[in-house]
This record gives sequence, C-alpha cells and structure tokens, in this order.
Amino acid sequence: MSERAIGVFDSGIGGLTVLKEIMRLLPGEELLYLGDTARVPYGTKSPPTVLRYALEAAAFLAERRVKMLVVACNTASSVALPALAKRFSLPVIGVIEPGARRAVAVTRNRRVGVIGTEGTIKSGAYTRAIHAFDGDIEVYATSCPLFVPLAEEGWAEHPVARATASEYLAPLMARGIDTLVLGCTHYPLLKNTLQAVLGDGVVLIDSAAETARLVAARLAEQALFRRGPAANPHFFVTDIPHRFEKVGGAFIGAPLLGIQQVELDKS
Amino acid sequence: MSERAIGVFDSGIGGLTVLKEIMRLLPGEELLYLGDTARVPYGTKSPPTVLRYALEAAAFLAERRVKMLVVACNTASSVALPALAKRFSLPVIGVIEPGARRAVAVTRNRRVGVIGTEGTIKSGAYTRAIHAFDGDIEVYATSCPLFVPLAEEGWAEHPVARATASEYLAPLMARGIDTLVLGCTHYPLLKNTLQAVLGDGVVLIDSAAETARLVAARLAEQALFRRGPAANPHFFVTDIPHRFEKVGGAFIGAPLLGIQQVELDKS
Repeated sequence: MSERAIGVFDSGIGGLTVLKEIMRLLPGEELLYLGDTARVPYGTKSPPTVLRYALEAAAFLAERRVKMLVVACNTASSVALPALAKRFSLPVIGVIEPGARRAVAVTRNRRVGVIGTEGTIKSGAYTRAIHAFDGDIEVYATSCPLFVPLAEEGWAEHPVARATASEYLAPLMARGIDTLVLGCTHYPLLKNTLQAVLGDGVVLIDSAAETARLVAARLAEQALFRRGPAANPHFFVTDIPHRFEKVGGAFIGAPLLGIQQVELDKS
Repeated sequence: MSERAIGVFDSGIGGLTVLKEIMRLLPGEELLYLGDTARVPYGTKSPPTVLRYALEAAAFLAERRVKMLVVACNTASSVALPALAKRFSLPVIGVIEPGARRAVAVTRNRRVGVIGTEGTIKSGAYTRAIHAFDGDIEVYATSCPLFVPLAEEGWAEHPVARATASEYLAPLMARGIDTLVLGCTHYPLLKNTLQAVLGDGVVLIDSAAETARLVAARLAEQALFRRGPAANPHFFVTDIPHRFEKVGGAFIGAPLLGIQQVELDKS
C-alpha cells in the first residue's frame, strides 16, 4: 500500500488520453499531471533538448514524492526513458513498450505500421521495442507532423484530416500492414478518420489503454496500490492554464479543475 | 555611422523571411539572428509567456551590443513591443506597424483582412495599428493555426493547404476584403495558394519587405548605417541546429552557415 500519488507528464495536453485511462482503471489513485505547455511541442525538437525537458519535468514530480513516474508522451519516452530510470529511484513507465507489446500480440501477417512525431519516428524506439518482442516482424514507420495541429484545431474528422491521413498512410497501406500503432498521445482523437482511410482490415493500437494496464500491473507487483477514496487529479502546467483548460477538457471529456501554473526552467 | 550589428529575433525560422529582405535591402549591414527553436512556436502560447521569452531573446542580443532590435515575429511584436522599447535603450522595430501601414495605403474599398496565429489575432494588435492610421477601415481578422505546420511540412502548395485556406478565408471573402495582411512570418511561403483561393482582386501584404524598408529608414534617420563590406549573418538557435539548418535553408534560399546553439532560459 502507498498513499502517494502517481506522477504523469507530457509536453502538453496529449498525455491526458493516458491519464484518462489510468483514472478509469485505477479510480482510487491520486494523480499529479504536468503538461509543459510553455515549451510544447516536443515532437519537432532534438533528443538532447527533449531529454533536458523530461529530466526537469520528472524532477518536479519527484520533489512532490510520487511513487511512480508515467511518461505520457511518445517523444519523451523514445529518448529519455533510460536516463529517467537512472536518475530517479522510482518505477518509470513509458508509452512505447506497452503499445509495441500489444501490436506484436495483435498482428496476424506480421506487418506492423507505426505513426508518430518526427522525434519519435527518427529515434527508432518503436521498431526496437517491437523487435525486442519478435525480431521477425516487419515494421514500417512514418512521421505525421500535421496530425497534432489538426487534432488541436478540432479538425480530427474534417475532410482536410482525411486527405492528410490518406497521403501519410499510403506508403504503409502499400506494404499491406494489418496493425497500426498510434505512436503519439494525440492520435486517438483521429481514430475514426484513420480507420475510415485504412478500412476495417487494419487494427489500431492505442497505447493509452495499454499503458494504464501496465501501470496497474506494476502497482500490483510492488504492492503500491492506494486505499482510496477517489480524488480529482491535480494539474500543473508551465504556461497560463487557459488554453490547457479549454482544449484539455475536450480530451478528457470533463472540465479540468484547479490547474496550477509552475516554472520548470527557473528551478 | 555604426559598425555594430542589427539584432533580429523570432520564435524559430519564420523570421528568416524578414532577415532575407533586410539582407537584400541593406547588404552592408552585419546581422545577428536568434531563433528560439527550443521553445517554438510562440503563436499558441499566452501573452505573459511570450513576453518573458521575448525579453530573454532581446537581452541576449542586447548583450552582443546590437544597434537596433528587429522583432521578426508577429506574435512577439503583438504583445512585447512596448515592454522591449522600455527595457532596452535601442530602436525596436516590430513587424506589425509596417504591414498595417502598407494595408492602409493599398486598400481601395477600406475592407482589410488580417490572418495570423491565435496569439497575434487575439491580441488585436493589427486592428489597433490599422485604426491608428485610419479609424474608418473595417478590419476582419482570423487565426489560421494550420498554416505554420503546413509551411514547415513543405505542403505550402499541396491540395491540403488549398482546402485549408479555402475554409479559413471564406469568412473574410464573404466580407468583400480587397487587401489581406499576412500577419505571420511563415505565411509568405503560402502566397501562391492564398492568391489562388482569393483570386486576383485581393492584394496580399507581406510585412517582411515593409519591415526591411522601415529598418532602412530608421538607420538613415539616426545615421546608423554600416560602412560595409557585406558579411554573412550570424545565426543563434536554442535547440540543436539540424532542423533549423534544413528547414531554414529553404526559407532563405541559401545554406545557413555557422549556426551556434545557445541557452536563454539558464542565463
């Protein structure tokens, strides 16, 4: 048993899809969520810069004595996980391994597609994670830089999103994939559009739900569950909360209460 | 006469469209360009955060003893100009007033459209600047959040850009504008697409060229011209230079040499 909170961080609002799944699966846990909205996005930035930001975010949560760290951002997970696990004596969970594991379990023809930000795709983290489970699976990965702005614009099901998805996904479809990993926490918002473009023969893997299951399994292993009762999550952001509150509410399907602005880069 | 350099800053690469015009008009000047690529974009961030970043960027250039500060970013110009002019005893030039002045000179039917980032449009800076010249002009302003990612993706003339532009510009066209201010330094890359959607009856105002003219005029007024000879600009960025070099080269139409990485938030 541990009454301490679980710390979750992301570059901005995307990680709220992960938070939502953790809340659903583990309603008794206390959750601290940090969105680095003053420096969002991470997906177009270099590995050393993303690593520095991830270390600062994790330090902020570690100071608040969390019992576990969830990196709810694919870009940060793809470059910072080993460094975070080394720096902090806490269980650290990223979003990449859970999605990769699920894709390996689901694929029938062993052709898996992965989509994500430029940073995530360039890192090769998904291909490595999938091959760690099964080295014979063919992985086709491509970055989709316009998906995040489309989701944030509220155009996830707009004809422009559909045209963009058709172009980005064409090379993966040409390879005959039967499974597609949504390697960015924003992409679940585009599920309907992606499924319409790909057709019903392709299974979409959303790592948010997989990550929440892994969080639950780790808490169980280490006997770290909280007794409850249910508490509202606490939100911290690095820019003023207005936009996070507005766009994030749509992500999580409920108003976000008590958002607090903090500084990471001056600490 | 002053041998000192002109300092130019932007959130990233967009301001290179302004730098290019200054280089063309004033080839004898030495130029320092700072792109805050570790924290780009500014357009979705709040005024207090953009103000903090702009003050840090300006301080970096002021330490290098520039003779003039050019804020080559519409979002930063729209929220930080008075604070910068107050803090630094230097001539400070933004991109908004030059574009507004030109729009007022060009419009025949006195209906002017303005497009920009969320931050720029919300600030109301263009409407105020245009009304300062002529209070009777009707100004219709709208934010176009997908234009920057489309330009950076290299899709400026892609059918997706055209469909996006048709949707964003429809309300301005319905108002019968005859002039459109491109209120973001990325937008000149979309000129062909915007003109195709708007038709030949609408004049596009690109503030880069107007801003360069204002820089020349101020140098002349204050007798601050440099004797020459021509020098390559110096580039500073806050993330590692790779992406700036690649995408920025396309903006300026020539390779960017000697880019140096610096930190603003640790100073």
